[in-house]
Amino acid sequence: MRNFAVTMAYNGTAYHGFQRQDNGATVQQTVETAIKKLTGCEANIIGCSRTDAGVHANGFVFNLPLESGIPCDGFVKGMNALLPPDMAILDCREESLDFHARYSCKGKQYLYRIYTSPVRDVFLRDTALHYPYPLNTELMDRAAGLFIGTHDFAAFCKAESLHLVKTTVRTVTEARVVTEGKFTDIYVSGNGFLHNMVRIIVGTLMYISEGKRTEEDIAAALDTGDRERAGKTAPACGLYLNRVYY
Amino acid sequence: MRNFAVTMAYNGTAYHGFQRQDNGATVQQTVETAIKKLTGCEANIIGCSRTDAGVHANGFVFNLPLESGIPCDGFVKGMNALLPPDMAILDCREESLDFHARYSCKGKQYLYRIYTSPVRDVFLRDTALHYPYPLNTELMDRAAGLFIGTHDFAAFCKAESLHLVKTTVRTVTEARVVTEGKFTDIYVSGNGFLHNMVRIIVGTLMYISEGKRTEEDIAAALDTGDRERAGKTAPACGLYLNRVYY
Repeated sequence: MRNFAVTMAYNGTAYHGFQRQDNGATVQQTVETAIKKLTGCEANIIGCSRTDAGVHANGFVFNLPLESGIPCDGFVKGMNALLPPDMAILDCREESLDFHARYSCKGKQYLYRIYTSPVRDVFLRDTALHYPYPLNTELMDRAAGLFIGTHDFAAFCKAESLHLVKTTVRTVTEARVVTEGKFTDIYVSGNGFLHNMVRIIVGTLMYISEGKRTEEDIAAALDTGDRERAGKTAPACGLYLNRVYY
Repeated sequence: MRNFAVTMAYNGTAYHGFQRQDNGATVQQTVETAIKKLTGCEANIIGCSRTDAGVHANGFVFNLPLESGIPCDGFVKGMNALLPPDMAILDCREESLDFHARYSCKGKQYLYRIYTSPVRDVFLRDTALHYPYPLNTELMDRAAGLFIGTHDFAAFCKAESLHLVKTTVRTVTEARVVTEGKFTDIYVSGNGFLHNMVRIIVGTLMYISEGKRTEEDIAAALDTGDRERAGKTAPACGLYLNRVYY
């Protein structure tokens, strides 16, 4: 048995997230079907995380235990010929058998992309959140700093998913707001994330810009777990799993 | 009666071109439906040109004769609220009644965008042609110069559409190949274009890069109208109607 660590990008618009499910196309199922076609082997890939419907990835990692003599570069080329144009294999390397895309993961970086312009860009409809007003990115960046550190992020978790986790304590190592032309890019890194955590952080930072929340609200949300002190959940289309660290 | 000149952008991926037709959604029909909703008036918009299925526009112009007191900025805002996210109204101004988007047009600029990289970009699947090898853009740019001027472009017209035009003589005023990071952008301007003309010019320039055609072939194609001396038709997804001149 060999074990491959594979990095891929995908445009999540057409998929019900990464994880295989019964109704609707998913990234996992599309990739496993292509692996079967390429190698003849039934594949069970292990993703570094789930992603929600419509969320994208610039550098998603999965591992693939496989009984196959296929060379790594043959895997990349063969898969890219078989996968649909909204998916691409970027890298494949062989790892030891104990490498596990989820358990071996040391951290992840997410990017949330907002396009700020009075008129929407018709070519970004699925890949950035359009926001028609200027954002106070300085205020947002300063407030983002409050998320850095080890906190109880219960207020930044989708309510229906709270019962699925043992603890809502997570460590955020990076939270910053960068202006890049007409884009406002929000980078959030950490050792683990609750369901919708980045999207609620982004929604809260947008409320900060709009004056609907203050830095005190963020401190109180982290302190009390009160979802009401945080902001709304930003739409999936702006979110990218950007990098995974091992 | 008033007459509006409207500039819009659209992502053509989901549409069967600009022009209204019986089967399939078109840009024209989507826009006219929105105008009806906004103003209550039956609208008959006149486009500056047809575009094929999957072709995009950064600055498409139509004119709209309308019995309505709606102010121009109200038209822009109202339409952008009603149109789907893959369309946007960029500008609206009132013109004299004899302004006609097609007949008054003095020239058009098209942009063809090629993304050159060994691996495709999953976020550009519908908005650029992916080409996995380097392009000889210097050679292409030099060959592009051969198109400038007044020529018989019969060899650069979709065969099935040849009988629809009185003459295949057109004047090209700009044809150049620009490298912009991983993009190869081909700009073609002229006073009028035959069906698929820009896409065949682009396909021919790609054959030039690949050594499948020479500058002599282009000269011969312009001279004889022999479609075989030109290249194949490049896919629609890379083509943008970029600007229209009046």
